[in-house]
Amino acid sequence: MAGSTFGNILKITTWGESHGKGIGAIIDGCPAGLALSEEDIQAYLNRRKPGQSRYTTKRMETDAVEILSGVFEGKTTGTPISLIVHNHDPKSKDYSDIASYYRPGHADYTFDAKYGFRDYRGGGRSSGRETIGRVAAGAIAAKILKQLGIRLTAYTKSIGPVAISSFDPDVIDQNPFYMPDLAAANQAAAYLENCMQNCDSSGGIIECRIDGVPAGIGDPVFEKLDANLAKAILSIGAVKGFEIGDGFLAAQTTGSANNDSFYMADGPSVQKATNHSGGVLGGISDGSAILFRAAVKPTPSIAALQKTVNQSGEDIEISIRGRHDPVIVPRAVVVVEAMAALTLLDALLLNMTANLTSILRFYQ
Amino acid sequence: MAGSTFGNILKITTWGESHGKGIGAIIDGCPAGLALSEEDIQAYLNRRKPGQSRYTTKRMETDAVEILSGVFEGKTTGTPISLIVHNHDPKSKDYSDIASYYRPGHADYTFDAKYGFRDYRGGGRSSGRETIGRVAAGAIAAKILKQLGIRLTAYTKSIGPVAISSFDPDVIDQNPFYMPDLAAANQAAAYLENCMQNCDSSGGIIECRIDGVPAGIGDPVFEKLDANLAKAILSIGAVKGFEIGDGFLAAQTTGSANNDSFYMADGPSVQKATNHSGGVLGGISDGSAILFRAAVKPTPSIAALQKTVNQSGEDIEISIRGRHDPVIVPRAVVVVEAMAALTLLDALLLNMTANLTSILRFYQ
Amino acid sequence: MAGSTFGNILKITTWGESHGKGIGAIIDGCPAGLALSEEDIQAYLNRRKPGQSRYTTKRMETDAVEILSGVFEGKTTGTPISLIVHNHDPKSKDYSDIASYYRPGHADYTFDAKYGFRDYRGGGRSSGRETIGRVAAGAIAAKILKQLGIRLTAYTKSIGPVAISSFDPDVIDQNPFYMPDLAAANQAAAYLENCMQNCDSSGGIIECRIDGVPAGIGDPVFEKLDANLAKAILSIGAVKGFEIGDGFLAAQTTGSANNDSFYMADGPSVQKATNHSGGVLGGISDGSAILFRAAVKPTPSIAALQKTVNQSGEDIEISIRGRHDPVIVPRAVVVVEAMAALTLLDALLLNMTANLTSILRFYQ
Amino acid sequence: MAGSTFGNILKITTWGESHGKGIGAIIDGCPAGLALSEEDIQAYLNRRKPGQSRYTTKRMETDAVEILSGVFEGKTTGTPISLIVHNHDPKSKDYSDIASYYRPGHADYTFDAKYGFRDYRGGGRSSGRETIGRVAAGAIAAKILKQLGIRLTAYTKSIGPVAISSFDPDVIDQNPFYMPDLAAANQAAAYLENCMQNCDSSGGIIECRIDGVPAGIGDPVFEKLDANLAKAILSIGAVKGFEIGDGFLAAQTTGSANNDSFYMADGPSVQKATNHSGGVLGGISDGSAILFRAAVKPTPSIAALQKTVNQSGEDIEISIRGRHDPVIVPRAVVVVEAMAALTLLDALLLNMTANLTSILRFYQ
Repeated sequence: MAGSTFGNILKITTWGESHGKGIGAIIDGCPAGLALSEEDIQAYLNRRKPGQSRYTTKRMETDAVEILSGVFEGKTTGTPISLIVHNHDPKSKDYSDIASYYRPGHADYTFDAKYGFRDYRGGGRSSGRETIGRVAAGAIAAKILKQLGIRLTAYTKSIGPVAISSFDPDVIDQNPFYMPDLAAANQAAAYLENCMQNCDSSGGIIECRIDGVPAGIGDPVFEKLDANLAKAILSIGAVKGFEIGDGFLAAQTTGSANNDSFYMADGPSVQKATNHSGGVLGGISDGSAILFRAAVKPTPSIAALQKTVNQSGEDIEISIRGRHDPVIVPRAVVVVEAMAALTLLDALLLNMTANLTSILRFYQ
Repeated sequence: MAGSTFGNILKITTWGESHGKGIGAIIDGCPAGLALSEEDIQAYLNRRKPGQSRYTTKRMETDAVEILSGVFEGKTTGTPISLIVHNHDPKSKDYSDIASYYRPGHADYTFDAKYGFRDYRGGGRSSGRETIGRVAAGAIAAKILKQLGIRLTAYTKSIGPVAISSFDPDVIDQNPFYMPDLAAANQAAAYLENCMQNCDSSGGIIECRIDGVPAGIGDPVFEKLDANLAKAILSIGAVKGFEIGDGFLAAQTTGSANNDSFYMADGPSVQKATNHSGGVLGGISDGSAILFRAAVKPTPSIAALQKTVNQSGEDIEISIRGRHDPVIVPRAVVVVEAMAALTLLDALLLNMTANLTSILRFYQ
Repeated sequence: MAGSTFGNILKITTWGESHGKGIGAIIDGCPAGLALSEEDIQAYLNRRKPGQSRYTTKRMETDAVEILSGVFEGKTTGTPISLIVHNHDPKSKDYSDIASYYRPGHADYTFDAKYGFRDYRGGGRSSGRETIGRVAAGAIAAKILKQLGIRLTAYTKSIGPVAISSFDPDVIDQNPFYMPDLAAANQAAAYLENCMQNCDSSGGIIECRIDGVPAGIGDPVFEKLDANLAKAILSIGAVKGFEIGDGFLAAQTTGSANNDSFYMADGPSVQKATNHSGGVLGGISDGSAILFRAAVKPTPSIAALQKTVNQSGEDIEISIRGRHDPVIVPRAVVVVEAMAALTLLDALLLNMTANLTSILRFYQ
Repeated sequence: MAGSTFGNILKITTWGESHGKGIGAIIDGCPAGLALSEEDIQAYLNRRKPGQSRYTTKRMETDAVEILSGVFEGKTTGTPISLIVHNHDPKSKDYSDIASYYRPGHADYTFDAKYGFRDYRGGGRSSGRETIGRVAAGAIAAKILKQLGIRLTAYTKSIGPVAISSFDPDVIDQNPFYMPDLAAANQAAAYLENCMQNCDSSGGIIECRIDGVPAGIGDPVFEKLDANLAKAILSIGAVKGFEIGDGFLAAQTTGSANNDSFYMADGPSVQKATNHSGGVLGGISDGSAILFRAAVKPTPSIAALQKTVNQSGEDIEISIRGRHDPVIVPRAVVVVEAMAALTLLDALLLNMTANLTSILRFYQ
């Protein structure tokens, strides 16, 4: 079925394959009147650009975005915003190898099982390049959220066994791993060197913090804010786990340790003394910072020898050469942030119809 | 917005509050011709019934389901199946306490923030009783899946610090915690006794295994099978985390350790030597068992003294008396299984339109 | 698939068969804080009650509605409102005739073709009683619209060849046909007498006028307000046509005659000199009254002899005895009004997110 | 909200404005394995091309379609098909006039009312060029339908007062109006000459016939096949009415005249002696040809003098010069056919899950 659309009020649809003519996204339901330029979007795309350090693929991808519709005289019109990033040099390469076998950890086999055949060039639709459309759309959502006083900060929490032990938001952009801890970043670099020498790769954890979300956003039952965040994050290739607040740690603890006490702050407003909940209670934001984590598996494309089967049904051994990221995490940080922005903005828009008083005031 | 509907082809809509007239579900899109009786559904509901051990609430809830529509002469007709479980004795009790303050760890405050007021009786819509509709619907989905050769097995993996160390499916139903390891169940009992003496509660982890899923189910991009499972599971109250396959462990490991090799089995068919992926590659089932886990937080209602605020904006201390489960996990096991069944059946139905050859064969 | 849900923000799901245990509806996404009682809904249901004149079926249907959830202390809570109308005496009758053949003009054959069998009692799910859920839900939507200054008026425009030639809203409720013209109502009565003597039935046209809709409601492209009205109205059994404004007449005229001039009214506000458009331009309300019509076919159940086939594949002749309305139109008037109310309210709720200025103001 | 997506399983999303960089469509959910080239799509686009006779605008629009994704080695892959038609010469023209006032019969005023401002160049998003995406997508749907033995034929039934009185499908493509009656086409030409001399325009009626649809397609209640066709057709700009089968005529007739008798044909299969229903009973296809009509209003852009207001709030008089079609109908014929194809294919795909027997057979 059609699985390329995300969201209810703010709907994003992505299209494109790794080595087709381009990658794109339609953002439908974007409110009219937002000042928007290609630069706004490009700034986000540049954060996922490869070739920025020796720990990301050396492929040159310029990934320049073009706005095709939905913006007039510098402002969104309320009609669909069509974005395109043209692929370059999708020619030349010999894909006969990759076409003939199933790479372990990739979706080659499952695409064949589902569709009968696949676009095998560079992973086709399940390539990491598919996230370009998400990031471009997320840039627009984040710009609106900023005007609502909401700020998202995603960063790398760990790479393999190396986890951050301090948090300095100012250094996130100062190391190739987007870690808020420079010492940890140095250790991660050393760990990855070792992985690369072993023709191997590493996984890691991304954390995302959202400040400024008012209480009351999200819906009970099936459209809980954290349920939609979980779907958004798990829909990113290579993500294998999601947790909000204390997450899996909460499973090991007790109610007295896990409950967040309420108290009256100056203002007066209701506050929480702690934030084990990660900013969501009963699927609805509680006014605290939203905090969640994504577990990312190691890059499946490795040069080390692996067993697999080819399409003739023979057991073979392969070694995947080429320019592959030894770790996906750093480039996925902005993808996580983008998906969170899209999910949250959609929930904020949906929330406007929650009670009659607001509706009557809106239309009076 | 309307957040009470789940699914695309098979759509379930739930309604009802803890202390209203009843709890119900509509299952729309259930295929015609399934033999279905109230007993089929009741068997699942009984698995979440309280009062079955000293580790679940002593409230008596008979929870007898009645089919109101969609079944004729013992078979589903293809039209919506309406199910109701009448609430009993929703009267009498004095809720003035619970109405006046916000219980930590509950959705009292967030409902007020969103809607302006709330049905405070027993948690209203965010009560655990809301899951009755899910379980009833899940029973129908599971019955269809069984005819497709697919079997779901959910069980408790850990309670607080006590985790299973062996797996015997036959003993899952022989202990009040639905653990597949009787020794661990005994340890969990001791641990919970201690919690209860401390007026406290415990969290835990539920694992679910699905056997018999053919390769090719689920969609790329936003409707990945694991993304939809994540949403389904996080939409259950008290769930704070989801992971599939190796999950968060995959974040600490290497590609060579995490990739599952393919090989040709007798048959001949493509098999995987290991199952770190948890049965899903690129969002599509890979033919291995699907295996995922849910982190459940401790019951927030505890008798221990807690700080909070009341609706007059005063800081107060409370102790929540009453019949509350010291751990939610055992009763949530069947809820996890139900949500997985609904998600998977929906994906199987959607998959029927994936390729033209199948469609032409269907209509020839 | 699941075809029993209508709407985006305000979602209604109906269930139930003519002779099952009951008929019901879930209204999900209803804003919190609306004062709502069973009387509010009953008033609408009474308008479709049979047995009120010799021109509607003499079946006794009390159709008393019960609210099962979503209302607390007299106000909607924002959670799903579950409504039920219990069926009475669904027993006793012998349906062996109707079970054995396909009634012309009914859905008996198409249900069998689709599902393999059908609930043949009284038309099952395709009975006119299915509209009870729509009317109940529509009553809630209409109550909210009234608070927004919007008023819906549906009435019978014609029965067979008898059309109204004057419009007095005060007399709509004073004749059994809900016609705004008593002289026409008398002619319609005479015409129907003749039909009944001939063991025959009649069709007719329903018109609906909506006053007070602000300009700007509805969306361009696929979610045009008139497109959604058309779907809503055609989804009512027996409706075979829909037109807005001048409708099919516009196809015969010229641009100069059909265009509505704009002018500045006191206020100052933009007004239209005429309303050939029926209140919608480009799928978006233009501030004029919305005016549309529905063509309703004659009651297919007639006592006159008809040819058909039975389930053994034999050509037979039948005469459908029993208590059937000689014309569906009068009882469908309130159904048209209800579907229009649901469609319009949904569009009004969706419209709240159309531009950034409104959103920033909402959340400031 | 996002109103630019249509369909459930087969989802089409369109984007683009009349004078932006291009017009496009994403078709998501198209089954894998369909042979597809740009020529397949271009053939349909050419049917809506202007400049083909003196009765359509003389603007040169090459409208060459390019496939950007979703097709690999000549076959659809199951992933989204992105199509683009680049706009040419969107520069130069002076739009200061059109920007300053509201054209009667157009969506200028309603866009401003909704979004606060509008892309005024050539009608922006509400231009007839928006239908390019629909036609391109419809070409793909029609190609699949053809393989299922289903054929769609849309044609002009009337222009202004001139209606066809014979039906010869072979001449539809032999006259500029797509009429199946050459004599009527000649009369229409004379009528339009007169309109053009009067600086005026004409409306008309399009009819669409679909042969080969099996019985059982469509869903009861809200997703009736005819309800979805009505929405699809009314979502085309300038369409003001929809009727299926006898439509509005059925409202004037009797049950005995309107019911279609069933009989056993050789085969043996159930057939209908007549087709007043237009091929749909209870929202589900009955095996007869589906037959519906769309009422199209006259082109609102006319050279005759009209009254309107400008954005300064002044009453003014305007005359709209430029290259406008004197009648929209001929170019809308293929749009109607395209929307019908998309609606029907979506219903066929949804229908595959209607009963358990089919599902079990599919997965066995």
